[in-house]
Amino acid sequence: MEKDGGGVAAGEWRFQPNESLMAASSLSVRGVLTEIVANIDNESEDTRPRIPLGHGDASVFPCFRTAPEAVDAVVSALRSGQYNCYSPCVGLAPARRAIADYLSGDLPYKLSPDDVYLTNGCAQAIEIVVSVLARPGANILLPRPGYQFYAARAAYNGIEVRYFNLLPESQWEVDLDGLEALADENTVAMVIVNPGNPCGNTFTYQHLAKASSLLVANTAKKLRIMIIADEVYEHLTFGSNPFVPMGMFGDVVPVLTLGSISKRWVVPGWRLGWIVTNDPNGVLSQTKIVECLKNYLDISCDPATFVQGAIPQIIKNTNDDFLRHTISVLRQTADICYDKLKEIDCISCPSKPEGSMFVMVKLDLSRLEGIHDDMDFCSKLAKEELVIVLPGCTVGFKNWLRITFAVEPSSLEDGLERLKSFCSKHSKRSSSPAIRS
Amino acid sequence: MEKDGGGVAAGEWRFQPNESLMAASSLSVRGVLTEIVANIDNESEDTRPRIPLGHGDASVFPCFRTAPEAVDAVVSALRSGQYNCYSPCVGLAPARRAIADYLSGDLPYKLSPDDVYLTNGCAQAIEIVVSVLARPGANILLPRPGYQFYAARAAYNGIEVRYFNLLPESQWEVDLDGLEALADENTVAMVIVNPGNPCGNTFTYQHLAKASSLLVANTAKKLRIMIIADEVYEHLTFGSNPFVPMGMFGDVVPVLTLGSISKRWVVPGWRLGWIVTNDPNGVLSQTKIVECLKNYLDISCDPATFVQGAIPQIIKNTNDDFLRHTISVLRQTADICYDKLKEIDCISCPSKPEGSMFVMVKLDLSRLEGIHDDMDFCSKLAKEELVIVLPGCTVGFKNWLRITFAVEPSSLEDGLERLKSFCSKHSKRSSSPAIRS
Ligand SMILES: Cc1ncc(COP(=O)(O)O)c(C=O)c1O
Ligand SMILES: Cc1ncc(COP(=O)(O)O)c(C=O)c1O
Repeated sequence: MEKDGGGVAAGEWRFQPNESLMAASSLSVRGVLTEIVANIDNESEDTRPRIPLGHGDASVFPCFRTAPEAVDAVVSALRSGQYNCYSPCVGLAPARRAIADYLSGDLPYKLSPDDVYLTNGCAQAIEIVVSVLARPGANILLPRPGYQFYAARAAYNGIEVRYFNLLPESQWEVDLDGLEALADENTVAMVIVNPGNPCGNTFTYQHLAKASSLLVANTAKKLRIMIIADEVYEHLTFGSNPFVPMGMFGDVVPVLTLGSISKRWVVPGWRLGWIVTNDPNGVLSQTKIVECLKNYLDISCDPATFVQGAIPQIIKNTNDDFLRHTISVLRQTADICYDKLKEIDCISCPSKPEGSMFVMVKLDLSRLEGIHDDMDFCSKLAKEELVIVLPGCTVGFKNWLRITFAVEPSSLEDGLERLKSFCSKHSKRSSSPAIRS
Repeated sequence: MEKDGGGVAAGEWRFQPNESLMAASSLSVRGVLTEIVANIDNESEDTRPRIPLGHGDASVFPCFRTAPEAVDAVVSALRSGQYNCYSPCVGLAPARRAIADYLSGDLPYKLSPDDVYLTNGCAQAIEIVVSVLARPGANILLPRPGYQFYAARAAYNGIEVRYFNLLPESQWEVDLDGLEALADENTVAMVIVNPGNPCGNTFTYQHLAKASSLLVANTAKKLRIMIIADEVYEHLTFGSNPFVPMGMFGDVVPVLTLGSISKRWVVPGWRLGWIVTNDPNGVLSQTKIVECLKNYLDISCDPATFVQGAIPQIIKNTNDDFLRHTISVLRQTADICYDKLKEIDCISCPSKPEGSMFVMVKLDLSRLEGIHDDMDFCSKLAKEELVIVLPGCTVGFKNWLRITFAVEPSSLEDGLERLKSFCSKHSKRSSSPAIRS
């Protein structure tokens, strides 16, 4: 079929693509991973399996298969025929109640079902919250390194992004001193991801308490901004720090908590998440943020009704053994990962992961021959060893790597072994002694 | 619990709600219906069932129960465990292929899977398309009366809306003369909903051919805008005009076709829709609209992966009997509706519905006593008769009503009977002969 524009030149049409979208998506993890995978030669004779240590989707591995009770809950909601209909924009009432009760278990006060708004995964929760806070001139504080979906949505909505640092040498705690200097009267919110992506850290109670009080009163500048707490990895912790929900400090500073069943139940394809107002003082209603949130929900898409319908049963019926098993596999794979990485000269790991499913490691390019940067490292690693890891530039930390360890243990070992041999193959010491530069 | 903002006044917080959102949602059908239903006194002694003729969700009625094959397809996708993962942003390849093949059946050329992008229902397809076309100063042509979700998303994205008329006296055809006068060099697209919501019409081949050629060359102004064809009600036709997809004219003018399984399979809660580029001349790639579309998909949420996984089986296995049955019930209920409405003095129906699940009727307020307008009519009807219909103001036609007939036949008859007695109770003639004004 001829593709000649029907004889009309492209510039003669009256429509044009949205400029802010042409820019926004260069930040996407999925986009970068696709680019990296494209380096693999499909015609090659290398028949080893590909090892995906790049993105955070454990669901493809048998050891992370979701609980059968959760599947049964969705099947019976579907078979009941009662959930083929549209849902209310805020979500089905029983699902909101079940999530309120579930999250209240970790809090010093009780959430009401009206505090809970259902979304299409935590991703849509982020989209909604960023859209609600958008206004000309606004800026938002994001962690670096961080999950760049926030930056992409902020760019699309015209919100300026200001990065605060997470400190590798202090277990990835927030650089609170730096934070205060960043904020001004146009700062609307600070994002905290806990347990952390990409850092694999879990914040202590003390650190979160310090951060939240800093945001309100204990400073000369009186920041008075809200916290967006991304807790999509809630309870996926396996180190010494227990998970502390940010909602704990909702009476100090209003908190919008974002979450989903994607990670804990290992079902990111089910697309069910939430926005929760952790706000015992009612600040978010008084400032009309809640009203605006409902308005956005009114004009946006919903999670599948039958998945909403299944939520009470998913939460109630899921066996603790499943959750314990997930944690124990993650603890095991985090150990494998940490130990193996120690054997690799050009890679250093500032702290052992204690939560989520990622670890951030630093590349020492000076020990490598012919590798320009993290992107080059990942492209060549994919091509030569069929191992996919995420270049740090995608999370705002150039020449670092993010490695996912939520992988079948045997594959993980295989992948790390290949990573090791890749590094030694390209290392300056082990290659020819001739020094070129 | 005290809700005093924690001692900080609302205005002292640095965040504020997004203004464009505070405006956008007043247009929502769901919002207006909630307001109307709120008129029903829950304490009343009236124990008759509520009759919902307001919104377009047939799935709650047994006679519109979806095909068991469709349910089985989703259950087996879910049980397979293969679709718990994230999906590609554009959608799973087999689902894209199945939809391309399905839609190609009605077209003179073959769609490629790459022409199909999966969305969270047709609602998200609308959100995406409007976002992609947004640019400062742009305007979009929308039908009046029309499905106001387009206007809400356009308002949110800062696109100016210009309405063209659908002509009640000409089977709701587009006022093509008026259309040409509306468009200017900032017009980016025209929306055509076929079969129509709220009008229940089905456009003829000739009319669509005329509209599409008008948009390109046959005019002094050379409009050169694209068509957004909302075909969410595709094949739900039961009159003399067969359904003609707008893609038929894709070689004349580029068409973005939007659809979903919500209506034909009566599963709006499953949230699976699509955007299809009907563009054999490749205009949409040349103008970078396709690239921009992919970028938006990169930063937006996806339909549940296991529903995507089930699509090939849903399309392949659904028995024709199910589809025929749906049409035959709709034909029957459209007949009931049309015949019954003829018996009501203060209501006139310009044309018998031939598609979708709605009919637009005109209220003659001069024959009614003490009813101010359509909103007042609907509120009192809900209160007195527990029958919910949608005021025309919600679809841009003040003092008309939109009535949904996709309802169990016995409920529909009951509802229309109550509507009739409501009208006669409030009619000028049947009330006291004293003329007040
Ligand atoms: C920090 C963070 N937030 C949100 C998400 C999105 O989660 P969901 O699958 O619930 O949309 C992810 C996914 O990886 C994530 O890492
Ligand atoms: C004209 C029109 N377009 C789109 C939609 C949204 O459909 P979906 O359920 O696929 O999101 C509707 C729903 O009623 C509609 O009437």
